[in-house]
Amino acid sequence: MNAPDYGRAFALWRDAAPDWRSYTHHAFVAGLGDGRLPGDAFLHYLRQDYVFLIHFSRAWALAAAKAGTLSEMQAASAILHALVHVEMPLHIRLCGKAGIPPAALEATPEAAANLAYTRYVLEAGYSGDFLDLLAALAPCVLGYGEIGARLSGSAGPYADWCDTYGGEEYQQLCRDTGALIDSALEARLGPEWPDLPRAAALSDRFATATRLEAGFWDMALRPDPRA
Amino acid sequence: MNAPDYGRAFALWRDAAPDWRSYTHHAFVAGLGDGRLPGDAFLHYLRQDYVFLIHFSRAWALAAAKAGTLSEMQAASAILHALVHVEMPLHIRLCGKAGIPPAALEATPEAAANLAYTRYVLEAGYSGDFLDLLAALAPCVLGYGEIGARLSGSAGPYADWCDTYGGEEYQQLCRDTGALIDSALEARLGPEWPDLPRAAALSDRFATATRLEAGFWDMALRPDPRA
Amino acid sequence: MNAPDYGRAFALWRDAAPDWRSYTHHAFVAGLGDGRLPGDAFLHYLRQDYVFLIHFSRAWALAAAKAGTLSEMQAASAILHALVHVEMPLHIRLCGKAGIPPAALEATPEAAANLAYTRYVLEAGYSGDFLDLLAALAPCVLGYGEIGARLSGSAGPYADWCDTYGGEEYQQLCRDTGALIDSALEARLGPEWPDLPRAAALSDRFATATRLEAGFWDMALRPDPRA
Amino acid sequence: MNAPDYGRAFALWRDAAPDWRSYTHHAFVAGLGDGRLPGDAFLHYLRQDYVFLIHFSRAWALAAAKAGTLSEMQAASAILHALVHVEMPLHIRLCGKAGIPPAALEATPEAAANLAYTRYVLEAGYSGDFLDLLAALAPCVLGYGEIGARLSGSAGPYADWCDTYGGEEYQQLCRDTGALIDSALEARLGPEWPDLPRAAALSDRFATATRLEAGFWDMALRPDPRA
Repeated sequence: MNAPDYGRAFALWRDAAPDWRSYTHHAFVAGLGDGRLPGDAFLHYLRQDYVFLIHFSRAWALAAAKAGTLSEMQAASAILHALVHVEMPLHIRLCGKAGIPPAALEATPEAAANLAYTRYVLEAGYSGDFLDLLAALAPCVLGYGEIGARLSGSAGPYADWCDTYGGEEYQQLCRDTGALIDSALEARLGPEWPDLPRAAALSDRFATATRLEAGFWDMALRPDPRA
Repeated sequence: MNAPDYGRAFALWRDAAPDWRSYTHHAFVAGLGDGRLPGDAFLHYLRQDYVFLIHFSRAWALAAAKAGTLSEMQAASAILHALVHVEMPLHIRLCGKAGIPPAALEATPEAAANLAYTRYVLEAGYSGDFLDLLAALAPCVLGYGEIGARLSGSAGPYADWCDTYGGEEYQQLCRDTGALIDSALEARLGPEWPDLPRAAALSDRFATATRLEAGFWDMALRPDPRA
Repeated sequence: MNAPDYGRAFALWRDAAPDWRSYTHHAFVAGLGDGRLPGDAFLHYLRQDYVFLIHFSRAWALAAAKAGTLSEMQAASAILHALVHVEMPLHIRLCGKAGIPPAALEATPEAAANLAYTRYVLEAGYSGDFLDLLAALAPCVLGYGEIGARLSGSAGPYADWCDTYGGEEYQQLCRDTGALIDSALEARLGPEWPDLPRAAALSDRFATATRLEAGFWDMALRPDPRA
Repeated sequence: MNAPDYGRAFALWRDAAPDWRSYTHHAFVAGLGDGRLPGDAFLHYLRQDYVFLIHFSRAWALAAAKAGTLSEMQAASAILHALVHVEMPLHIRLCGKAGIPPAALEATPEAAANLAYTRYVLEAGYSGDFLDLLAALAPCVLGYGEIGARLSGSAGPYADWCDTYGGEEYQQLCRDTGALIDSALEARLGPEWPDLPRAAALSDRFATATRLEAGFWDMALRPDPRA
């Protein structure tokens, strides 16, 4: 199956990231698709994902702060708003149904793989500019889109998860995010940006975040708090 | 007339800011209330205020990034969202009616008083923490509330402006923002926070931002691009 | 007289900054050269300059944090070190001789023009990347070099000031800083960087910082604390 | 053996960090002391430590940017200067003798445990204030001091390493850093700071950084690039 079309930067960065396949075809992901992922592992993932979403939202807030134009600000602000006012309350309710009350969710000890990934993204944003931040955010947003597009229609206990990320609403978000990245790159670096030295640094941001996403799945399958 | 009740920190900081009265009773403000403000000055203000709102929104985005809890993030994100998806489009339409097309608005050269104020607030946030940022943001949010509460019901060409900030919706935003500040302070520094050395630094942040707000009104009356 | 050669970026940015001449040929500067600057104005400048140097040093520290390579870090760190361990103690002694004791120096109320300039530079660095920060720092470092090169050898009470900035040590610092900027630009954006959209944004950073430097001299001649 | 006296905050934070013993008595550390650490593991550590030192230096540069007083800036700047102008050149020479040329050192792929630790520290500094940054930096500086004080005088291939960190110069740096932390806390939060809610957040910063230091030693013994 081909990769979904989320724009030019995604196509380039995806091809250059050594761990892209490890991430998008991870055993955890396969288990979501064929329904064989143990329920405990999924619960462990949900708890870590709650902590992840807090920091991921902070990173989109930082993107709004570092945006160059009103329309870039609006795009980042819309994602932030959806995350903290829709996604996270939904996540809290979902965890509640799965037997994890909000207080337990809040008290989740953050796994090292979670720390590594989220702080890498945030620090990329703080120490770099809007482009550094987008390159570090892209693997999560767009990788979930690619996984969802592949797994959509799966049966089993994780069908909802698969359909959420494979669904049209999320796929549109991925196309919009890809377009945001492409236009941000062109507006700053011009149409030939892939030829600039900066392109290698951005591709490396994407590749490192991809590696850390794979590490997040590793952690989700191996719930050792220090790992 | 007494100051509106926007909470404990506001009451303390307001009383300690030497320029609070210069800001809230500025000649520009008086002219909005009695309708004698020249239309040119108001247009000049609208243009600079557009540039101001861009940076003010960035500062609220940064507040969401630096927040300590989900509810602090939600509060900051809601303000950011209202600013970039409601206030700014409204501002653009208002300026359009006043004869300033969007392209001219975008091209507004930023006055030095505008630069001074917005960069002071943003830098307070970047170099400090959530509390530094809130203390620097407070004079604008809450001062407009105090001015609006006083001028509400004024007749004349600026009656809309006065009623917007004196209206219940904006007054509620001020009470909510005051409560956000008070709870953020207590959650970090405890109930006796006004006795800590840190309190003086935060009060100084508020006082400096107040001084720069007064400078913004000065600039609005004296449209010299370098001043 | 021609401008000194501090490299490629400086030559481009200088020519594009509308206020470069206002800054480098300001009445304050002329008064340093012909010795007619009132002593009070110079003392006022020294006090504000102390506050300026604190923030200027912070900006170079931030540059070290945002550098991309060890040699960029070493360059920024060397400037920071010289500022806080040599320049500032010297400045404190110089002010002491001029009758301003350290406590008075510390207590200097920061003029709005000083706030505007320093926070603009720091915020450029925090919200942007290493290049944004260098473009905002350049007018101060290199402008003093150009002024010093022109005024060096002047007689009168400010001969020391003129010779410090016109002297070989400071001129070498300017050439080194210009080379740091040029190599940082090439390493990230390639040799054709002046043709990229990003170049306009960087040139604008330089032009705005130049405008705020001119505003700093204005303030130095008109010691109104709010201005 | 008792812990060395590096001040009040260190004593409190150390006692509250669950992983302090795992870090300071790690098998890697024991191997340095008794000389049984395999040479390959030490070389692997040296390479990762080079990458670590780059980011650690950036964090001290950020501390200088976020400092509140000239003397805090001078303290942070002195550490930064020692790191980039003395420690790192020394490290490069040491690695060169061990058969790792500078180019190979530069090309070291950054282990995930390294990313996790350094980005956690830097992000703590960017999103928090000077105190957050010091609390996150402390476990490395002071833990090496405690380890060095214990292992000093060991024989074997790592005697130099042990004597460097156990030696008077490094021990004085630890006492100075502890004093810097204590005075920064008092200057902002007053003498009763351990009773404030903020104290728990700072202690948590220290504990998390300690956990990630232990993870760094784990990685040093298990050279899997993704781990």
